[in-house]
Amino acid sequence: MDFSSKLLENAVYEMSQLPGIGKRTALRLVLHLLKQPAEQTARLSGSLEQLRNTVRFCSNCYNISDTEICEICASPKRDRSLVCVVEDIRDVMAIENTSQFNGLYHVLGGKISPMEGVGPQELNIAPLIDKAKGGEIKELIFALSPTMEGDTTNFYMYKRLEGLDIRTSTIARGIAVGDELEYADEVTLGRSILNRIPFEGSLKS
Amino acid sequence: MDFSSKLLENAVYEMSQLPGIGKRTALRLVLHLLKQPAEQTARLSGSLEQLRNTVRFCSNCYNISDTEICEICASPKRDRSLVCVVEDIRDVMAIENTSQFNGLYHVLGGKISPMEGVGPQELNIAPLIDKAKGGEIKELIFALSPTMEGDTTNFYMYKRLEGLDIRTSTIARGIAVGDELEYADEVTLGRSILNRIPFEGSLKS
Repeated sequence: MDFSSKLLENAVYEMSQLPGIGKRTALRLVLHLLKQPAEQTARLSGSLEQLRNTVRFCSNCYNISDTEICEICASPKRDRSLVCVVEDIRDVMAIENTSQFNGLYHVLGGKISPMEGVGPQELNIAPLIDKAKGGEIKELIFALSPTMEGDTTNFYMYKRLEGLDIRTSTIARGIAVGDELEYADEVTLGRSILNRIPFEGSLKS
Repeated sequence: MDFSSKLLENAVYEMSQLPGIGKRTALRLVLHLLKQPAEQTARLSGSLEQLRNTVRFCSNCYNISDTEICEICASPKRDRSLVCVVEDIRDVMAIENTSQFNGLYHVLGGKISPMEGVGPQELNIAPLIDKAKGGEIKELIFALSPTMEGDTTNFYMYKRLEGLDIRTSTIARGIAVGDELEYADEVTLGRSILNRIPFEGSLKS
């Protein structure tokens, strides 16, 4: 693309560095900002800078937090013996939305992925093991996505936890509520039969 | 969505004000920035602010430009008697990419759209009429998108230009090069038959 303005070219280039934003979309977004009052651009760039420069992570669960300890970890109503291990803050938000979980979280910050150069030391796995050795935790729920990287990460954590008196579990894989059987993939359907649950168990929700 | 951090919520909100960016996408983009070095966020917000605060428009054609007169308007190689009227800067870039046009442009900044509260006075139509009255322009090409708003804008400009010794034209509508006839919509196919061109004319490209 040939730009008539160097400033415009710069802004479009930086915008297109965001994931899933190509040059054309970036140009559309930047031109939109130009049509809006200057305050909107100021608010956008200000809020991004402020977040990036003052962002803090809860020192217990590594969730993004404005305080030293996040609200969930600080709450006395939460079951501190149950910890759900997730990939990032979006998973915390998704699980919180279900209102079905009353324990604490531990945010790993990613999955082990040799292809992308992410090893165990890039993730918050060591603090998790330390926490587990503390003795307060009775059960760890591995709630990573069911991909090869997720399974690898689960297995690595499982191995590191060996010898500790802690139950480990993963979230149930199976047919999604409301899904048609015939459209489910074979692996999911196969697992949902292997890991079938007593009918009485399916009645509570 | 429940955010664990007010700063994060702010940044996601401002990001989601951009067109086509929902809350979920905004969250993904913001979390991506958090994983990158702080310099990337600084460059993004800096380039946006700089563009927004120092943006200038060519005083002749209203294209975005870093100088008083844009490169195209300043070029002595351009045919100043031929002016292509477009909606915004993206259209200038698209037409420039074809290398088929050697005249100047005039950027309206939008189309007349009563639904969105855009009337002729919100667009750069008055300066176009003034330029037309100057006598240098021999032909105006209306290159707006073939929608109801585009046609309305074309007709409005056409009416305002009445009495002036200027030819007006619109870009050709027809079957796109490489398209299959059977998949073309009726209106386009119908017009392409009505506005058929001598076969010799189709040989030059």
